Amino acid sequence: MNVNFAERAHNHNWRLDPIVRSLLDTDFYKLLMLQFIWKNFPKVEVVSEVVNRTRTVRLGDHVSRETLVAQMEHVRGLRFRRSELVWLAGNTFYGTRFIFEPEFLTWLENDFRLSEYEVSEEDGQLKICFRGLWSEVTMWEVYALALVSEMRTRSALSRLSEMELDVLYARAKTKLWDKIEKLRLVPDVRISEFGTRRRHSFLWQEYVVEAMRNTLGASLTGSSNTFLAYKHDLEAMGTNAHELPMALAAIASKGTDEELRASQYRVLELWAKSYGGELLIMLPDTFGTTQFLAGAPDWVADWTGQRADSKNPFVAGDEYCAWLALRGRDATKKRFIASDGLDVDGILELHRYFHGRIRFSAGWGTLLTNDFRDCHPRNEDDLEPISLVCKLVTVDGVPAVKLSDNTRKSTGPADQIARYRRVFGSEAEAGAPVLV
Amino acid sequence: MNVNFAERAHNHNWRLDPIVRSLLDTDFYKLLMLQFIWKNFPKVEVVSEVVNRTRTVRLGDHVSRETLVAQMEHVRGLRFRRSELVWLAGNTFYGTRFIFEPEFLTWLENDFRLSEYEVSEEDGQLKICFRGLWSEVTMWEVYALALVSEMRTRSALSRLSEMELDVLYARAKTKLWDKIEKLRLVPDVRISEFGTRRRHSFLWQEYVVEAMRNTLGASLTGSSNTFLAYKHDLEAMGTNAHELPMALAAIASKGTDEELRASQYRVLELWAKSYGGELLIMLPDTFGTTQFLAGAPDWVADWTGQRADSKNPFVAGDEYCAWLALRGRDATKKRFIASDGLDVDGILELHRYFHGRIRFSAGWGTLLTNDFRDCHPRNEDDLEPISLVCKLVTVDGVPAVKLSDNTRKSTGPADQIARYRRVFGSEAEAGAPVLV
Repeated sequence: MNVNFAERAHNHNWRLDPIVRSLLDTDFYKLLMLQFIWKNFPKVEVVSEVVNRTRTVRLGDHVSRETLVAQMEHVRGLRFRRSELVWLAGNTFYGTRFIFEPEFLTWLENDFRLSEYEVSEEDGQLKICFRGLWSEVTMWEVYALALVSEMRTRSALSRLSEMELDVLYARAKTKLWDKIEKLRLVPDVRISEFGTRRRHSFLWQEYVVEAMRNTLGASLTGSSNTFLAYKHDLEAMGTNAHELPMALAAIASKGTDEELRASQYRVLELWAKSYGGELLIMLPDTFGTTQFLAGAPDWVADWTGQRADSKNPFVAGDEYCAWLALRGRDATKKRFIASDGLDVDGILELHRYFHGRIRFSAGWGTLLTNDFRDCHPRNEDDLEPISLVCKLVTVDGVPAVKLSDNTRKSTGPADQIARYRRVFGSEAEAGAPVLV
Repeated sequence: MNVNFAERAHNHNWRLDPIVRSLLDTDFYKLLMLQFIWKNFPKVEVVSEVVNRTRTVRLGDHVSRETLVAQMEHVRGLRFRRSELVWLAGNTFYGTRFIFEPEFLTWLENDFRLSEYEVSEEDGQLKICFRGLWSEVTMWEVYALALVSEMRTRSALSRLSEMELDVLYARAKTKLWDKIEKLRLVPDVRISEFGTRRRHSFLWQEYVVEAMRNTLGASLTGSSNTFLAYKHDLEAMGTNAHELPMALAAIASKGTDEELRASQYRVLELWAKSYGGELLIMLPDTFGTTQFLAGAPDWVADWTGQRADSKNPFVAGDEYCAWLALRGRDATKKRFIASDGLDVDGILELHRYFHGRIRFSAGWGTLLTNDFRDCHPRNEDDLEPISLVCKLVTVDGVPAVKLSDNTRKSTGPADQIARYRRVFGSEAEAGAPVLV
């Protein structure tokens, strides 16, 4: 009597349960960077690659190449939907309307496509390599990471019984709500959800975002996930990433050392020309924060704020405040965003530490959208988050390099890293172990 | 496309969501006692009453009289189903087949009915009073308690949003699974689920039982809930309750003090005549455990075990072991069941304490099937369990009395309590506060 015959038959017909169902299901900064690339570097060709920094986890054992390709082909078949483009065109981002140019939106609608790719396996590790125009490669980053992350989740879940799944989610929800309760006690804390790329799953990320939205009020400033922002009327958060200084440095590295060193500021100039106001958040750690600040032209101190992504955030914030004072700027008017491996206690500590000195906000990622530690019903660890990244390998044939404030996060060939280190004069310094 | 039109319309048509949907949804001992009453006391008339011992909770504010009556009328409209009667007739209980006589089952099928009742409100407290033949009143106990308990739950849940409900259940499940994980580490612990009357809800009790069944193996010896035992192939647990010695004492109290005192052993004689083997579990605390044991005829020491329901169970178990030694019986062959306000840590402590000395098992009730303490999303307390009981008031017009090992659990008029205390020679002793 209660059998829905059509639904039951339909469930048998499922072939693929797509993970990424909209091209908006990506970090908002990818769209800002895409427009930046489309506008300034339409002919640049790049290679980028997905790397698992958690070598102890053999991804190849958990993620089937065939299914991964099927998921990737599904993403390649997606188009921006009309209502999504209307939203991008008409919405206000960071208080600014018409942030996306009509020509760019027309290009997104008619000409945007994702590049070719290769998926291979080596030593139990998956390797995904993208090649093509930068504007066709760049968007793969978040889609590919989110796909691999959720496929790893599905693989772990497939070994659990219905009851074990129930235990798992009850525990994860309890854990999430305990975090939210702690945050509720501090109404002036400011948090953006930054967890798309390493999320447990899309639906879990959506659950997390809805949970925060319904309980934290103004403390949740928004989500980096453009699709969730669109679907749930949230602010879309994020500005830019290491990809830009890395690419511009690689291009400049064909010239003199001075050109290479200057490239880190050239990114900012170009960015400011493309976007203004609140979007002027710099990311100074690509080749070392200290040298970046020391050598920065004075106008850099006019930018709205800084995002710290690899340095101890207490140190990075103190350094930024001191530098602003030195440059005669008022730190209390600036924004400082920490976004590296944060969890609730660290967020609250940072909030207390910087309160009244600078506008602190937290970009809370993996440990918000994928914290299943100690939730596994058999105490196994295959749902613990791993450190999966997608990095530029070459730009127009030249190797791309990131030094970072934490050598564990450096990428690039050793000889190039050596040259960059010499040029930027930044010390190699091993930071905290990279958890996520 | 995915709308199930029939289901949606049907959901609008709901009038009552019945709480008790089967006459088997009761403690198994009620059925054993029902046969005992039907056989030995078919003409006795009683009055019984539901009492809330947690006076601070004004039940009348949470439970609507009208809905309660609708739920009770639903129960009165139920009949034992054919397949339920076949199961009662053919199943093996405590290793014994044909525990229910064919004549009794025929009576259940054709003549069993629930008595009249009155629901009134006094000082914010609900009063439910049952009057009629003992065989028509007795079964109300568990149905009525379970109804009130779940209606109180529903009232609390009705004030929560969908997301708050989700938090609530995630926390309650996490709490339950933490308990189960502790028990898993001690494979020889033995537990019966005894939580029907004060359960959060039927579905939650079923969830709890399934969770334990799927993970605890032989540690879960069974459930007192006959319907769950029937539905999930579990052992139906339980033997008898205070109701029997209270009723027999009330009848005997019309005679001499000696007849009154002897009535507590007459129950056991009659019970042994009706049932044998594993069903010989005595409940010695109705008029005080110490006097019961001291004055017991020697054959009482041949019974299989004891259930302790109001005395500190460490003390009660020690006292029972010492008494068995005094009477020359081997305690390691006997069973000792604690059933009063247990929770997981107490169960494990008792298990360790009695291990090797006597066969200990736990009858785990309210804090198994209704432990929502600290789970409320707004930290309110309206889901905390309360101490709701249903007690005999009179038997053939004579007041019924319980002294108990804990004066907080005494019932009956003061003058009768005084007489009983004199006759049984038991000291008044306030035990632990009654939580559930």
